[in-house]
Amino acid sequence: MSDRELVVLGTASQAPTRHRNHNGYLLRWDGEGLLFDPGEGTQRQMLLAGVSPTQITRLCLTHFHGDHCLGVPGIVQRLALDRLAHPVFAHFPASGGEYFEHLRHASYFYDVLDLREEPVTADGVIARGEFGTLEARRLDHSIDAVGYRLIEPAARHFLPDRLAQAGVTGPMVGRLQADGQVWADGRWVGLADVSAVRRGQRFAFVMDTRLCDGVYELADGADLLVIEATFLDRDRALAADYGHLTARQAARVAAECGVRRLVLTHFSQRYPDLAEHRAEAQAAFDGDVVVAEDLMRVPVPPRSVGVRTA
Amino acid sequence: MSDRELVVLGTASQAPTRHRNHNGYLLRWDGEGLLFDPGEGTQRQMLLAGVSPTQITRLCLTHFHGDHCLGVPGIVQRLALDRLAHPVFAHFPASGGEYFEHLRHASYFYDVLDLREEPVTADGVIARGEFGTLEARRLDHSIDAVGYRLIEPAARHFLPDRLAQAGVTGPMVGRLQADGQVWADGRWVGLADVSAVRRGQRFAFVMDTRLCDGVYELADGADLLVIEATFLDRDRALAADYGHLTARQAARVAAECGVRRLVLTHFSQRYPDLAEHRAEAQAAFDGDVVVAEDLMRVPVPPRSVGVRTA
Repeated sequence: MSDRELVVLGTASQAPTRHRNHNGYLLRWDGEGLLFDPGEGTQRQMLLAGVSPTQITRLCLTHFHGDHCLGVPGIVQRLALDRLAHPVFAHFPASGGEYFEHLRHASYFYDVLDLREEPVTADGVIARGEFGTLEARRLDHSIDAVGYRLIEPAARHFLPDRLAQAGVTGPMVGRLQADGQVWADGRWVGLADVSAVRRGQRFAFVMDTRLCDGVYELADGADLLVIEATFLDRDRALAADYGHLTARQAARVAAECGVRRLVLTHFSQRYPDLAEHRAEAQAAFDGDVVVAEDLMRVPVPPRSVGVRTA
Repeated sequence: MSDRELVVLGTASQAPTRHRNHNGYLLRWDGEGLLFDPGEGTQRQMLLAGVSPTQITRLCLTHFHGDHCLGVPGIVQRLALDRLAHPVFAHFPASGGEYFEHLRHASYFYDVLDLREEPVTADGVIARGEFGTLEARRLDHSIDAVGYRLIEPAARHFLPDRLAQAGVTGPMVGRLQADGQVWADGRWVGLADVSAVRRGQRFAFVMDTRLCDGVYELADGADLLVIEATFLDRDRALAADYGHLTARQAARVAAECGVRRLVLTHFSQRYPDLAEHRAEAQAAFDGDVVVAEDLMRVPVPPRSVGVRTA
């Protein structure tokens, strides 16, 4: 199991099908488990996918249409039953606070879950942690909706070969780190001479929306972009009417934003076969295209091989 | 498809398993569709079972533990989406009214469903219709819970052979029906001479409970009894603690109450195999024992062959 992967729990939009449950996506990211848009049945889909609900550290809801949130009561009650030892943070559009309360208290249970509600009220950073920052952006759907992205900070790390070559050893490394330079073998050695900056990884989650600034801001530079592709391009008028994207639109976003791996999901049941979704996306985007299936695991692409020195 | 059958949608208790969804039972009874205790995922289980949610005419909830009601939002929203043409009546313990409101309004949807809430406040008849009467009885669980039974009235119907033999023809039949007797071929012919009374069919639904009067009152004379058998008899102390039945207790109820077909369900996940449930039940009850599986269809047993004249 990769340390950073997406576990796809459901891929249907409004109506589930025999092979597609309503939405649900668990992002496993080091010690964090971010559960995005759990639709009805997510609890059981986690069982079928072989991932434990106790991995969940955050619930991130894009909006309060049923296919994106009706799995919340089952997850909340399951975590309470499991006597979860850590808190769970819940992010959702603030305008849907009443719905969140209904889902949170949908039926009788012994409520010992430490659930911390953090409604999203504006674009920007909504949480910080070891993972870096979690951000939200407003999207353009038929009701209030947001998307999310996870931004790992860039990290400088020393290159052992270069350190040895420059004669920087023992306590000199600490001084270099603190001061930005150190005197070694008769010359000043700077950080850039013996270290590299590794760009942080990025994950973006874009559900029900028309094309808008928020979509591009979220997708920017994403290593892994999960994005709805409810419709095909020939139905783009319908997509616009209902506040959705087509596979072609989603792939163009990925291309323009330098995405590495594109995961299409949230398919309308009107399409029995998704070969056209794949074809549309591949025509518009050179990177890796994944047409999501239930219970699939999608690794966050490995870090770029070449580290950039800075 | 039988006109009167139970479609089993889920058979797990607290936690779903790979092969068992949370509860859900659709009783198809002539033109009625009574959905009992829809747990999370019932909407999709109906799809997998090949029954349309538009058949639903009544929702009957025994209590507000999640495994018995978290499927309500999905069903309600699905029926609204389908623009259901008929009203749906909802029965549930009145003390859980607030939970029902949360489930009814769990997330944003275009709410055009004619849902008529009929909270159960006392034992007795809670609805009448072409099906006869729907009754509720209080049960004994860890929270307020009720069970249900459907009682078809006895119906007198003329026996054509006997009518011909007695010389009762044409408008004389109507007079016989109206007056209870008619003069034919030189003698008085009474209703009992030319008709039979067919006992109405009975269905009973008993979920989470300890043994109590309500259990026996509901099961009395049931052609089909659906009853929880969460535990095995060796765990009867646990069953009592948690307010549940064992397979043996359920079967004894069926035997004492003259049940014809017994459907055991709501199994604890602690039992990987249900052979013992079946054996316990068969040892205590001579009738037909069904150990429920998801997506199974169980016909209401055909009416007794011999009609009783009265």
